Amino acid sequence: MNFLEERILKDGKVKAGGVLKVGGFLNHLIDITLMNKIGEEFKRRFEGQEINKILTIEASGIAIAAITANYFNVPVLFAKKTQTVNLDDEIYSAQAYSFTHKRTNTIVVQKQFLSKGDRVLIIDDFLANGEALMALTSIVEQAGAEVCGIGIAIEKGMQPGGDKLRSKGFKLESIAIIDTMDSDNNSIKFREQ
Amino acid sequence: MNFLEERILKDGKVKAGGVLKVGGFLNHLIDITLMNKIGEEFKRRFEGQEINKILTIEASGIAIAAITANYFNVPVLFAKKTQTVNLDDEIYSAQAYSFTHKRTNTIVVQKQFLSKGDRVLIIDDFLANGEALMALTSIVEQAGAEVCGIGIAIEKGMQPGGDKLRSKGFKLESIAIIDTMDSDNNSIKFREQ
Repeated sequence: MNFLEERILKDGKVKAGGVLKVGGFLNHLIDITLMNKIGEEFKRRFEGQEINKILTIEASGIAIAAITANYFNVPVLFAKKTQTVNLDDEIYSAQAYSFTHKRTNTIVVQKQFLSKGDRVLIIDDFLANGEALMALTSIVEQAGAEVCGIGIAIEKGMQPGGDKLRSKGFKLESIAIIDTMDSDNNSIKFREQ
Repeated sequence: MNFLEERILKDGKVKAGGVLKVGGFLNHLIDITLMNKIGEEFKRRFEGQEINKILTIEASGIAIAAITANYFNVPVLFAKKTQTVNLDDEIYSAQAYSFTHKRTNTIVVQKQFLSKGDRVLIIDDFLANGEALMALTSIVEQAGAEVCGIGIAIEKGMQPGGDKLRSKGFKLESIAIIDTMDSDNNSIKFREQ
């Protein structure tokens, strides 16, 4: 079991309806030592990829992406979520349905900050249905840039996002992949990697 | 002139209506080397304060706060913005009017992550009217914790937030304080510190 799987077992809380609460270390109160271990691990998993930019999405992806950027020594771009359809020719945009908030968000990035030739590592804290990540890959493609990899802290393997992204040929690395979890006894089973 | 003031002059864009665009290095595309200099500078300015937690607010405060946390070696808590009034007894909340978005947000933090005895450094990228920061100080006080300092990257000195916070006795440190700016010739004048 790796350091993140151990931490999820120790401090994560499984709630009814397939919800995993990790607000005590990952996405509300953030354990900065753990973030550094995650950044180091992404550096190891994407070694040799010549990445020049990290892309994430507000809000909870930003801390992981910023600390990871320290290990790659590259800038971080964070996409913004808006509920208004933005007809601005200075932005790239893509739609993503949020199952958590039950609404469609428009994900936007200013064109001037992402270009052809950029070699992008996409980083996020969670992968479940993959809507936000699919939108981010679309934005990178609109810019004529390249997705060199996708690094996720926690993937919910029982939801379709991971399969969808892997079947499109993206190099997706999730530090912890949850195959099953049960709120009755707070048990979590991880996929062997 | 310090490193951040130099960078604002080089890459910031003054727009009509008192708007300063710094999306190329601070709050959309994030220059991670600059973030580290900011984190180091906050460490220097709040030396000896025995801080055990950093508090910020989503979204653009998170990168600065996370990198700063690396220098203090403490966890980061980020407050969330919501537009619904949240009557949940597991959260601390405070209201903040957003002049940018012309609406009142409720700022929330889960009670379990902030407690009496916490010595908190509040970090954010911008200070203008101070609404969000006043809400954060209110949340720290609701928790019975202590605000040991407030660290800001860019303060708009011609807007009332800085005076309001200083007059309440908070140790507020802004790395760059803008006294005047003019969109006609993209000129910016910083306060001597």
